[in-house]
Amino acid sequence: MSGTTRHVPIVQHILSANDEIAQQNRLILDEAGTYAINIMASPGAGKTSVILATFERVKEVLRLGMINGDIATSIDADKASDAGMPSVAINTGGNCHLEANMLRGALAQIDLKTIDLLLVENVGNLVCPAGWDLGTHLNVLVASVPEGDDKPYKYPSMYRNVQALIINKVDLAPYIDFKMDYFIQGVEVLNPGLVTFPMSARTGEGVDDWVSWLKEQVKAHQHGG
Amino acid sequence: MSGTTRHVPIVQHILSANDEIAQQNRLILDEAGTYAINIMASPGAGKTSVILATFERVKEVLRLGMINGDIATSIDADKASDAGMPSVAINTGGNCHLEANMLRGALAQIDLKTIDLLLVENVGNLVCPAGWDLGTHLNVLVASVPEGDDKPYKYPSMYRNVQALIINKVDLAPYIDFKMDYFIQGVEVLNPGLVTFPMSARTGEGVDDWVSWLKEQVKAHQHGG
Repeated sequence: MSGTTRHVPIVQHILSANDEIAQQNRLILDEAGTYAINIMASPGAGKTSVILATFERVKEVLRLGMINGDIATSIDADKASDAGMPSVAINTGGNCHLEANMLRGALAQIDLKTIDLLLVENVGNLVCPAGWDLGTHLNVLVASVPEGDDKPYKYPSMYRNVQALIINKVDLAPYIDFKMDYFIQGVEVLNPGLVTFPMSARTGEGVDDWVSWLKEQVKAHQHGG
Repeated sequence: MSGTTRHVPIVQHILSANDEIAQQNRLILDEAGTYAINIMASPGAGKTSVILATFERVKEVLRLGMINGDIATSIDADKASDAGMPSVAINTGGNCHLEANMLRGALAQIDLKTIDLLLVENVGNLVCPAGWDLGTHLNVLVASVPEGDDKPYKYPSMYRNVQALIINKVDLAPYIDFKMDYFIQGVEVLNPGLVTFPMSARTGEGVDDWVSWLKEQVKAHQHGG
């Protein structure tokens, strides 16, 4: 374990540099009047599907943009572009999470003045992205029913570091042994009172509740800033 | 990106130290006559369910053990113990993958002479564990249908670094838009000829094919070593 111990001062240095850039990102976003959310999840929980379902429901009232982080390919950013959402792909080059300086580079490629709501899709990972502030206004976790009801217990840092939780793929619940009570109990211990949205991005069930809440957050930010 | 560049020599140093310990682990396993596999997957793909289904089918002919790496809790190791499989939990303390020195510590807590087949369950992650040799004899990836058919394209390192692929939760295929052809095409580009086992650990479908193949690997190793 000595390798890990030797690492600590370097990691701390990078984290504080990251936080400084994150702070600057938030200023850039605020100046442009853009509300940004950092969407995290396990691979295949449905981040991109949630983003596309959200886009379909708010595009008449809010101007959306998407920034997509992936370790390879731009499949998700291409899906967003195809749907008509301005999008930028960040290739992390193998890195298992986005960092504030990567978001900074992507922000420079978007005309933020034309974006009310920026959806930042992080790398699919339940460990690494936790605790890396990107400079967005909100951290959202997309859980999904097929992942199993024990995930809050197993990945506590991720569940602790978010301000909203989507439980996606509830349409698959009849075919899976997923105990919602056990899942929610784990969430409550880590993040009491966390606002939670069970939904299916595929069938549309529950998406409106999430979208209403999100629109309120954007409105509150626009009026506050 | 300068933070990343500064990191490189340190990462290389740790990797080569890891490889050295991995090599020693393999010697320890070989001396005891234990065949070990490193099982990797996204969170919730069903690693533990696959391990338990495997145990049920081979326990009459092979003596199994399990080592479980998780960033918190020992839920999975406890499940294995409850099923009657000797198991050791490694808490990685937040680390997103197992390393050879962690496995070394766990090996010391098992009487390897009583174990024919050791199943090492890595941390749920499709990025970090790739490329870290633990000293096991085989790397296995558990994919799952609900994760989506684009995962080989998005997580190429993981798909490149395995010698067997389980496609779990095929019982959910009727309820999901998962194109097996597209998935397999991605796998073939990265890892041509990779031996692949579609299965459902829950219903038992396809598990026997995997178990037969695995038993052959163990037998070949015992005769070879």
